[in-house]
Amino acid sequence: METSLQLRSLVKSSGELELSLAQVPVPQPAADEVLVRIEAAPINPSDLGLLLGPADIANATVSGSGADAVVTAPVPQRFMGALKARLDASMPVGNEGAGVVVAAGDSPQAKALLGKTVAILGGATYAQHRIAKASDVLELPAGATAADGASCFVNPLTALSMTEVMRREGHTALVHTAAASNLGQMLNKICIADGISLVNIVRSAEQAKILKDIGAKYVIDSTAPDFIAALTDAIEETGATLAFDAIGGGKLASQILSAMEVAANRKATEYSRYGSSTYKQVYIYGGLDTGPTELARNFGLSWGVNGWLLTPFLMKLGADAAKLRARVAAELKTTFASHYTAEISLAEVLQPEVIAAYARKATGEKYLINPNKGV
Amino acid sequence: METSLQLRSLVKSSGELELSLAQVPVPQPAADEVLVRIEAAPINPSDLGLLLGPADIANATVSGSGADAVVTAPVPQRFMGALKARLDASMPVGNEGAGVVVAAGDSPQAKALLGKTVAILGGATYAQHRIAKASDVLELPAGATAADGASCFVNPLTALSMTEVMRREGHTALVHTAAASNLGQMLNKICIADGISLVNIVRSAEQAKILKDIGAKYVIDSTAPDFIAALTDAIEETGATLAFDAIGGGKLASQILSAMEVAANRKATEYSRYGSSTYKQVYIYGGLDTGPTELARNFGLSWGVNGWLLTPFLMKLGADAAKLRARVAAELKTTFASHYTAEISLAEVLQPEVIAAYARKATGEKYLINPNKGV
Repeated sequence: METSLQLRSLVKSSGELELSLAQVPVPQPAADEVLVRIEAAPINPSDLGLLLGPADIANATVSGSGADAVVTAPVPQRFMGALKARLDASMPVGNEGAGVVVAAGDSPQAKALLGKTVAILGGATYAQHRIAKASDVLELPAGATAADGASCFVNPLTALSMTEVMRREGHTALVHTAAASNLGQMLNKICIADGISLVNIVRSAEQAKILKDIGAKYVIDSTAPDFIAALTDAIEETGATLAFDAIGGGKLASQILSAMEVAANRKATEYSRYGSSTYKQVYIYGGLDTGPTELARNFGLSWGVNGWLLTPFLMKLGADAAKLRARVAAELKTTFASHYTAEISLAEVLQPEVIAAYARKATGEKYLINPNKGV
Repeated sequence: METSLQLRSLVKSSGELELSLAQVPVPQPAADEVLVRIEAAPINPSDLGLLLGPADIANATVSGSGADAVVTAPVPQRFMGALKARLDASMPVGNEGAGVVVAAGDSPQAKALLGKTVAILGGATYAQHRIAKASDVLELPAGATAADGASCFVNPLTALSMTEVMRREGHTALVHTAAASNLGQMLNKICIADGISLVNIVRSAEQAKILKDIGAKYVIDSTAPDFIAALTDAIEETGATLAFDAIGGGKLASQILSAMEVAANRKATEYSRYGSSTYKQVYIYGGLDTGPTELARNFGLSWGVNGWLLTPFLMKLGADAAKLRARVAAELKTTFASHYTAEISLAEVLQPEVIAAYARKATGEKYLINPNKGV
């Protein structure tokens, strides 16, 4: 039986994370399925939770080498309770990716995809091969490579969903944090094209320049001394009452709500003891700062802070989600183009210095795995 | 022209709070209005924001005496920005109260109320007289005194609304904090009568006893060493995924969400990298702890923390709000009975040692103003 490599993440009940490459059988597609040879799969921040968990990567050790390397890292005891459901189960990793259809089932839809470059979503993409339903893959437009399409689900659909949430929940402008990220750049392109005012919060002058260069109007540097004043002015000017926050920890969500409240009260003519009646919402969709979220509650009583996750929102969208996917395909090499810091092989995913680089989640840095590179 | 006393709160742009009694004209009711001689008005935590604001009461001084006393207290500079809209405007105070209709307009509805004891909501109840629309007052049942009906809006409607929110948002049980409060005791009576599981969180053994004595099943003391374990077990047993929190500051909201997540994961059969898909909600409706809310975010991505305020919720309820009011009237002396620490006159509201007592917002203590007492 033919086998190929698949990356595995295992948390042992003894308190260790183990990363390795498994030799797994290459499956045969059923009638309505295709077999994809994965050539590109991004490491998104949302992949790192499953891949590395809360392991102490700085103290990782490696045994073996190349495709036989096994990385072991300690998991601090305080996190073990939350990992109960995955203990001692070797798990495949990778939310999304793209590659070439190398085998197809008998259904016409499957057969039509043979030889095509397609993108897939749904796990286990850090592998040389993966089976998918023909109806679930996204055929890339002619001329698009697997690398072009590797990130065409998570970031593009998240960015588009932010503007969908805005419209559905009655807001008219947006605030976004860690705004120079790949996702943030896409969001700027969408908002510029759609005429939506977007207040970008970044953490350095370099990040501000990235966004200014692609035409962003409101770029606020949270490390600048006038951060709060500049944020409040931008929120007042745009009327933004909705924010998507990738940082999570610290005071930023609170500062955004507070700036929205001050902006709302600047327009108020009458004192309300409970603060403005303007509803202010922050969705936390990432955790670049894993510390606690600190809410000063100096923004009245009309506010919400919620966790936000793409998949349940797409399920709520139902049939409308197809419109978002179609826009992604149509604008794959423009609005939704991703930029990668480096393309790495499956064996390189297991090298400690490479782990340290992709685990850093630095804004503007993104790694692309090519499971069929160098093997 | 006849005048009577009305309590006023004034924040001056010079940075001082001033409390005093104003002599104001006793108004004549229009056709659809009644004039109420207020005999009982509670000091709810929700009144203190307007009454005292963020003034430093410990450093209050008094000039004059009796009905001519003027209390002055410094307002720390850092709070002055948030008070901009009320600066130098002398404001009447008091959300609710009850008394006797002593004059009525010509409409049949108004005339029918003459001599009746009624409850009113909507401000300026810390006064000897107040005008109200006949359609807005709640006629108390025969035998009920003004003191019986003084608190029949804010706490009863808030407690009933909590169970309404629970049903409307698809939850099946509740968590409540500062649960031995007057409001908390009402909520227990409602939940016992309606068969709703309620997890009460209190901050002392004495408070726990108050609730046990009225039949509460789940009473968790947050000062006990096994607090988190007991809370998690109670949440698992009841299936509560909704909490109303009167504390606001500190880690309690986060601990509740975390306990809900652990309880949800105990039932999970499969690992989800983003935490359980069980939606967990905390509404913060008070601020007994004015410090920041600290969210550890160790409860997945399916959660919300929102400010909550009664009035907008009642507006959303629309016509259904009348059902809540009818239940309050019917159960005024049972479910919705309030207990008061002391009945004080308007002049006593201005005495520093009395201010210190009602400003403490101690759970289980509540002060009742009788504006027509001792004048």
